[in-house]
Amino acid sequence: MKTVSIIPLTGIPAIEPGSDLAQHIGDAITASAGLRDRDIVVVCQKVVSKAEGRVVRLRDVEPREKALAFAKKYEKEATLVELALQEATEVLRMTDGHLITATAKGFVAANSGIDRSNQATSDEATLLPLDSDASAAQLRKRLFERFGADVAVVVTDTFGRPWRLGQIDFAIGAAGMKVLDDHAGRIDWTGRVLEHTVIALADQVAAAAGMVMSKDRGIPAVLVRGFHYEPGEENAGNLVRPRAQDLFR
Amino acid sequence: MKTVSIIPLTGIPAIEPGSDLAQHIGDAITASAGLRDRDIVVVCQKVVSKAEGRVVRLRDVEPREKALAFAKKYEKEATLVELALQEATEVLRMTDGHLITATAKGFVAANSGIDRSNQATSDEATLLPLDSDASAAQLRKRLFERFGADVAVVVTDTFGRPWRLGQIDFAIGAAGMKVLDDHAGRIDWTGRVLEHTVIALADQVAAAAGMVMSKDRGIPAVLVRGFHYEPGEENAGNLVRPRAQDLFR
Repeated sequence: MKTVSIIPLTGIPAIEPGSDLAQHIGDAITASAGLRDRDIVVVCQKVVSKAEGRVVRLRDVEPREKALAFAKKYEKEATLVELALQEATEVLRMTDGHLITATAKGFVAANSGIDRSNQATSDEATLLPLDSDASAAQLRKRLFERFGADVAVVVTDTFGRPWRLGQIDFAIGAAGMKVLDDHAGRIDWTGRVLEHTVIALADQVAAAAGMVMSKDRGIPAVLVRGFHYEPGEENAGNLVRPRAQDLFR
Repeated sequence: MKTVSIIPLTGIPAIEPGSDLAQHIGDAITASAGLRDRDIVVVCQKVVSKAEGRVVRLRDVEPREKALAFAKKYEKEATLVELALQEATEVLRMTDGHLITATAKGFVAANSGIDRSNQATSDEATLLPLDSDASAAQLRKRLFERFGADVAVVVTDTFGRPWRLGQIDFAIGAAGMKVLDDHAGRIDWTGRVLEHTVIALADQVAAAAGMVMSKDRGIPAVLVRGFHYEPGEENAGNLVRPRAQDLFR
């Protein structure tokens, strides 16, 4: 087992709709640690969404009755509530000022993952990418074309958790790696068969990257080097617990 | 922002009740990267519990009716179910073969965090430490005495999550660091005030350490170096969401 390094990718400029994110991330990689096979490039959702134009002007949003009532009762912005409801495929909780929803890809997040901070103007909100796994796959392809390195890519977003305070980063997009490591039946180091444990590798990577990625320090991407993973076709959709197996909806 | 390194602490022998865990971890630190101020030493729950004697022989456990019925219905071990119920202060779900409980310290986990894998005999189960924050504080003290370094210590356990498949490591004990980073009102790198975001730093650290800690490779502890945190008196209890604020019980 080797040391794993979480390397900040610095110098990435502010990303706007239409920015060539893969180009900027590639430049930052070139300027720092280079790229090797089995590296993992981790990018925060915010810049992916912005580059893909998933930015909405709130003044263009027409809140409907449900959003208006909730916003009024809990002193929220009705346009933001409306957007969150539009992005949701399921409302898990809409109470006490909290709006917890599932998105089309199955991610559960407050306000459908819509983000208002760090916007160029206060009238803008950023939605999650339409398909964050496709975003990861596309970035992976671009990096391979440029560097010839076979890496994995993880797109992250910070979500709250039940039962615990604070947020950490989760994988909402992944490409090039098996996101779940299944220990079932494996032999441990003392020769005994391990109990069935499945580790959410891509979520580990996301949370680790969160230690170095920083909204307020302008580091929207990091390189994870030295982590042993299996290359594979899985994506972050594989991390979503099927609704029928979920005890906490 | 610097590179963060997750360094495996190798060569720690099998830990048994009464083992001097701090001594063994210190030896592994000496043999690898040494110890510096602001390092974080991360240790998995299993070895902490074993060193503290939190090991139970299942043949000594007398299952009561509730445990017997559940075990029979779902083909579980009645003694393990009984232990989990004894360790629980609240049962969140007891259905479909799943037993999700809260422990006295407020952690929510399957089977009250009781673990059967990796046992020296198949008749043993390991309970969570009685006070995993005290375990972290005690290890921190011992490391300071030996190395003179002001570090943080995090004790981790792997828990499942609602909505997502797979487990990752969470902080169940912490000492020497602020476990929550409150962004409220902070200025971001473009000069704007950030929205209120609280990051669960100690859970980030736990998940990151989980990339390198490995049950089946005999690495029960790692060193996290280069992570910027604020020293402080908080502990993992500060990560527990108060029951009244929890939407998902």
